[in-house]
Amino acid sequence: MSSAFENLGKRIVLGETRAAARAMRDVDDRVPGYMDLLKAIFPSTGTAFVIGITGNPGAGKSTLTDRLIEQYRRAQKKVGVICVDPSSPYSGGAILGDRIRMTRHANDANVFIRSVATRGHLGGLSRSARDMVRVLDAFGCDIILVETVGVGQDELEITRTAHTTLVVMAPGLGDEVQAIKAGIMETADVFAVNKADRDGADGTMRDIELMIALGSESMVATGKKKGHAVHAGVKVDAIPFAGGADEPWTPPVIKCISTQGEGITDLVQALARHRIWLETTDLGRARRRTRLAEEVREALRETLIDTATQALAAEIDRAVSEVEARTTDPYTATERLLTAFKTA
Amino acid sequence: MSSAFENLGKRIVLGETRAAARAMRDVDDRVPGYMDLLKAIFPSTGTAFVIGITGNPGAGKSTLTDRLIEQYRRAQKKVGVICVDPSSPYSGGAILGDRIRMTRHANDANVFIRSVATRGHLGGLSRSARDMVRVLDAFGCDIILVETVGVGQDELEITRTAHTTLVVMAPGLGDEVQAIKAGIMETADVFAVNKADRDGADGTMRDIELMIALGSESMVATGKKKGHAVHAGVKVDAIPFAGGADEPWTPPVIKCISTQGEGITDLVQALARHRIWLETTDLGRARRRTRLAEEVREALRETLIDTATQALAAEIDRAVSEVEARTTDPYTATERLLTAFKTA
Repeated sequence: MSSAFENLGKRIVLGETRAAARAMRDVDDRVPGYMDLLKAIFPSTGTAFVIGITGNPGAGKSTLTDRLIEQYRRAQKKVGVICVDPSSPYSGGAILGDRIRMTRHANDANVFIRSVATRGHLGGLSRSARDMVRVLDAFGCDIILVETVGVGQDELEITRTAHTTLVVMAPGLGDEVQAIKAGIMETADVFAVNKADRDGADGTMRDIELMIALGSESMVATGKKKGHAVHAGVKVDAIPFAGGADEPWTPPVIKCISTQGEGITDLVQALARHRIWLETTDLGRARRRTRLAEEVREALRETLIDTATQALAAEIDRAVSEVEARTTDPYTATERLLTAFKTA
Repeated sequence: MSSAFENLGKRIVLGETRAAARAMRDVDDRVPGYMDLLKAIFPSTGTAFVIGITGNPGAGKSTLTDRLIEQYRRAQKKVGVICVDPSSPYSGGAILGDRIRMTRHANDANVFIRSVATRGHLGGLSRSARDMVRVLDAFGCDIILVETVGVGQDELEITRTAHTTLVVMAPGLGDEVQAIKAGIMETADVFAVNKADRDGADGTMRDIELMIALGSESMVATGKKKGHAVHAGVKVDAIPFAGGADEPWTPPVIKCISTQGEGITDLVQALARHRIWLETTDLGRARRRTRLAEEVREALRETLIDTATQALAAEIDRAVSEVEARTTDPYTATERLLTAFKTA
C-alpha cells in the first residue's frame, strides 16, 4: 500500500479535518490508489449511524437537515453531512440555494459538510457516497447525514447506502403519487411530514399511513420479484429466528415544522428507535446483512465493468464496427467480448 | 442453435403473429436459449423506425401514441407498440387505465401492442425493450413505438434504445423543472406540447425552446462529463466529416391536441425529418454509431454481471459474511471476487 495513503488514513483516524477533506476529494475523484486509503481506514469504521434523507425539492429537506444537525450537536455528537445531487447540471443553481442554509454550521469544527456532484452512471454515485461515508466514519463522526436532491431511483439507490432512510414530505406537493412511482414505500424507514402547519397536513399523514399499510400487503405479493423490496420483504420472508426479538418495523410518520424546529425531537427519537431495531432484532440484523450483501454485489458489478471496459476498449470498438456493418450480431459480439475478458 | 428457436425465428420473419407473440414473451422472460432466437432473427432486422415516447403521466402520452398509431396506419405502415412501466407495482392500476385507450387498435392485425413490466434493475428493462424491438423489427413492423410511463433516468435509458426520442409535455404540469432534473434535454429529439388548448401552452413552448438553447450551450461545458449527453455532445465534438451534410439537430417543439387529433401530422413530419437527419448527415450517423456502441457496452455489462453473480454465488455469500465479521474489508473482498471470476 502506498505509504502516502497509509499516512493519510492515520491522520483521518486521528481526526485531522484537513486529512478528511483531502480524502473525501480523493475517493470522490477515485484518484489512483484511493482503494488503499479505504482499506486502511476500514478497521476504524462501523461506529457511525448513517441516515439517508430524501424527498422532493420544496419539502424543506435542507432546513430539516439543518435542524437535525442542530439537535445532534446539542447532544455533543460529531456530525458529517454529504449532499448528493444526481440531477442534471442545469439544476445546480437551485440546489446551491438550499445548501446555503446549512452554512451556519460551517464554522463548527464538529460539523463536516461536503457535496458530491452527479456522475455518468447511477452506481458510481451511490458508491462515491458510500466511500465518503466510510471516510467520515473513520474521521469519528457519530452521525452521518446523506441528503439527496429530489426523489427518484438514483436517490433511493443512494439512501440505501444508509442504515436508516428518512423520507421528507410536505402537504400540497402531490408527493404521495410520485413517492409511489419512485418506489419510496419500499425504502422508507421513517417519514417526516414537514410544513405541518400548512393546510392538508393531516391528509398527507393519512395518505402516507395508508400507503404504508398497502405497502406491507403489496410486498407479500411483489417482495420476491422486486430488487428494492428487500426491506419490506424482510417482513414477509420466513427467517429462522435465533431467539432474538422478531418485531417487524413499521415506518413511523412524524409531523414537523422545521422552520420553527417543531417535531425535530420526535424525529430524532424515531430515528434512534430504528437504529435500535436494526441492532437488536433478528429482522433488523437480517436487513443490515442484506444491505451489506448489496454493497458487495454493487462493488463487484462496478469493478467488473470498469476493469472490462478498460481491458477491452479496442475489442469493443471492433465489435461495434462489425455490428454496424452487420457482419455479426450484438449477441455473438457480446459473447466474444466476455471470453476475451476472461482470457485477458 | 436449438432448431425450435430457429423455426420460431422463421415464422416471425414470415409475419406469423402467434410466433411474434410467443417470441416477445420468451425474450422478456429470457427463457433458456432466447439468445439463439435473437441471433436467428438479427439478419432480418434493421428496417424498422423506432420511436421512444416519454413524458409525465397527465401529459396525454397514451392518447398521443394512439393518434400516432392511427396516422401510421393510414399510411399503410405496420405498427408495433411496446409499453414499458419501470415504476413501482402500486401504480399498476393507473397505467392500465391509460393503456385501455389503445385497445381500439387491438383488432387491427397490423398493430401489435405488448407491455413489458418492471424488472429488478434498470439495465435489464431497457435490454428487454431492445430485444422486443428486434422481434417486432423482424416481424416486419415499419414503425415501432416504445412508450414509457413517466419520466426518469430509467425511462430515458429506455428511450435511448430508440432511433428518435419524442418527449410529450403539457401546460400546467410543471414538467419543465422535472424535465431538467431528469436530464430530458440531453435525450429529447422532438418535443410535443400536448393539450395545447390549455392556458399556458405558449409559456410551456417558450420554456422548452429556452431550455433547448441553454442545453446546447451547457453541453459544451458538460458534454464530456455526462454519460447521457452524447446526443448534444455530438453538436460540439469535433467530428471529421466525410463530405456529407453536417447539419446539427435542434429538437423541434410541436403543439398538438391529441384528443382532437390536432398537430399529429406536424408531429409525424418532425419525426420523419429526424429519421432523415439520422440517415443522411454525418452527425446523424455518428449518433447512430454512438447508440450502437452503447448497446454493445450495455449488453457486455449485463452479461458480465449475470455470469459473475451466477458463477460466484457461494463466494459472494462468503465475502459478505467475512465483511460482516470485519475479518476483511469490502474492497479486498471485491478484488478477490474479480480474480475468482477470471480464473473460474
